Amino acid sequence: MAIRCSSFEETARAGQARTGVLKLPHGNVQTPAFMPVGTAGSVKALDPRDVTATGAEIVLANTYHLWVRPGHEQIEALGGLHRFMNWDGPILTDSGGFQVFSLKEFCKVSEDGVKFRSPVDGAWRFLSPELAIEIQEALGVDVAMVLDECIEWPADKERVQRSTARTTRWLKRCLDARKKPEKTAVFGIVQGGFYADCRIEHAQELAEMDLDGYAVGGLSVGEPKDSLLEMVQVATPHLPTKKVRYLMGVGYPWDIVEAVIRGIDLFDCVLPTRSARFGGLFTELGRINIKHARYKDDPEPLDPFCTCYTCRSFSRAYLRHLFISGEALAPRLLTLHNLTFYQRMLDRLRKAIEEGEESVELFRQEVWKWERRFGEPAPVEQRSS
Amino acid sequence: MAIRCSSFEETARAGQARTGVLKLPHGNVQTPAFMPVGTAGSVKALDPRDVTATGAEIVLANTYHLWVRPGHEQIEALGGLHRFMNWDGPILTDSGGFQVFSLKEFCKVSEDGVKFRSPVDGAWRFLSPELAIEIQEALGVDVAMVLDECIEWPADKERVQRSTARTTRWLKRCLDARKKPEKTAVFGIVQGGFYADCRIEHAQELAEMDLDGYAVGGLSVGEPKDSLLEMVQVATPHLPTKKVRYLMGVGYPWDIVEAVIRGIDLFDCVLPTRSARFGGLFTELGRINIKHARYKDDPEPLDPFCTCYTCRSFSRAYLRHLFISGEALAPRLLTLHNLTFYQRMLDRLRKAIEEGEESVELFRQEVWKWERRFGEPAPVEQRSS
Repeated sequence: MAIRCSSFEETARAGQARTGVLKLPHGNVQTPAFMPVGTAGSVKALDPRDVTATGAEIVLANTYHLWVRPGHEQIEALGGLHRFMNWDGPILTDSGGFQVFSLKEFCKVSEDGVKFRSPVDGAWRFLSPELAIEIQEALGVDVAMVLDECIEWPADKERVQRSTARTTRWLKRCLDARKKPEKTAVFGIVQGGFYADCRIEHAQELAEMDLDGYAVGGLSVGEPKDSLLEMVQVATPHLPTKKVRYLMGVGYPWDIVEAVIRGIDLFDCVLPTRSARFGGLFTELGRINIKHARYKDDPEPLDPFCTCYTCRSFSRAYLRHLFISGEALAPRLLTLHNLTFYQRMLDRLRKAIEEGEESVELFRQEVWKWERRFGEPAPVEQRSS
Repeated sequence: MAIRCSSFEETARAGQARTGVLKLPHGNVQTPAFMPVGTAGSVKALDPRDVTATGAEIVLANTYHLWVRPGHEQIEALGGLHRFMNWDGPILTDSGGFQVFSLKEFCKVSEDGVKFRSPVDGAWRFLSPELAIEIQEALGVDVAMVLDECIEWPADKERVQRSTARTTRWLKRCLDARKKPEKTAVFGIVQGGFYADCRIEHAQELAEMDLDGYAVGGLSVGEPKDSLLEMVQVATPHLPTKKVRYLMGVGYPWDIVEAVIRGIDLFDCVLPTRSARFGGLFTELGRINIKHARYKDDPEPLDPFCTCYTCRSFSRAYLRHLFISGEALAPRLLTLHNLTFYQRMLDRLRKAIEEGEESVELFRQEVWKWERRFGEPAPVEQRSS
């Protein structure tokens, strides 16, 4: 019997959509859940109290960034990542692979691992499955992700099969490298490119390995959106129902709803945080770019339905003024809103799932209305799923 | 009898130093007080709750910046500056003169006012004493400053006398232009360059005019520090004891203590906020620049004596990491500390004044010790006052 520090319990179901509780060493996470991204040990522009105020129960940090700066040994010596960033809740880290592979020509893959040139200091570094686990265990996070090979889209089937086989071999090396299974769970990653049969085969292979949790990876790499949802849809039925399912790097509110309907429990994405820093806001009245001159004299809050500090306290006119003036307060207030918007959406989605499939479908239709730009008429016909 | 919306009451005295209460339409201010600077309607990187948490009871905003962007009419239409920035406490604005005169070759002074080229939009604008009051009353601030002529250091006596006479004529025009004396107090500004007799003469002249409050202006323009304190020392005895005295644009903690000892009640300065954004922190152990490699592994808080959120929550190592990584959270956490440091200093200074001259002198000696860099030995001999 494997030592486990995590568990997942499904609590309600509506079609393939489900609610659940992911239990981790630093606390429980209600799913479906969205993890704000705290790349370098900070959800950009927010302090940990702010993050809690948005409703987030778990944050994601990036192994690669923390490894390069300040270094995992330093963070471990300072008491681990939780203490370092003063976040008491669960933390999940990616493996560092996604960042390394995105360096493209500055990255060389072999069976051993990935050699790459760091953009921070220009030095060549080497990341192996074993090191990915070592770093994440040193950080002391609740969930470590295995190192997987990330390939481009499109890629031919033979390349996908070879790469997926390597990902499986690396996964086994990751599991063998674990030294703290009582502190850090390890999630595997289903690959298989954009071939349904490869996805199904890999999902089945990993399901048999009874991992702590399962991610669907290698998506959001430039493919059409329908392909992404199709790959999710074919893979999830082959994953164990008693384990959490995580769709990495997704996405827009409407993408999240569609993926939940296809059986996904966990998400992360830089979209709400990064978009906020560029003035892009999500609201129930549609998408806003706060830079727009139409908000110059607008006394209304960003989103009249939102309960966040930003919406309770400031007008669009003031937020636009802060943004245009380059005030440091703008990114914080806007990030606070977007993340609260996401968490409120997940909260409503969980309630809809508890109510049943009809509520989920109604909520799905409502979320698609948010896709339009603010001031545009709501679409009469909804997008088919 | 003039209509007044402000009053000042001295509550304790130790030598020339005094505590008091400045009563303004949006609340009371315990003096000596330090006003954080919220140039464009935001204390940079902080939200209003943060500003309150530092202990600040009043903030300063810059007339010039708000006039140029977003415009005082717009702010008035949105319900005034208090509502715009969601700050319920008192607000004081400068007149805009200091910013305009600092444009130097892009500014032309006449008896009517100042013509200048705006760095924001390149357009020529004209600021008169009447307009300075109109803008500030439109903003709805608690205290408006009169438009004064700011001249360079050094300047010959004849130039200082001519300029001071114009400042007095402009002051009278400002008072004549007031339309909302029940809402916005107007403080005069004592000029006189660096000639003690000119300072005394101008202080006496303004004292007879029974203004709402008195600022000492035209200082911190490049002169030696002893000259600044000397001008404060010669002017304050000629100002009415029943009115608040404000030293504009000062300064370091030790400068503030020295000026309080010479009879000043009110201060503003960008130093704690701007310095924080460049990594410069004030602590009771000395000054810190958080960029320094010595803090790389330092688990201690910035200042073990400080009660601010930053010092309660994070290590120097983490703060350095945020700063080096360019994280948006760094300026906020560092600003929060510096402003809290200032407010705690003022709080202790008020208590020392209540205790008497001996306590003030002991506290003065302590504050001078903070001038050194962190890690330097405390000086044995104190600087003479």
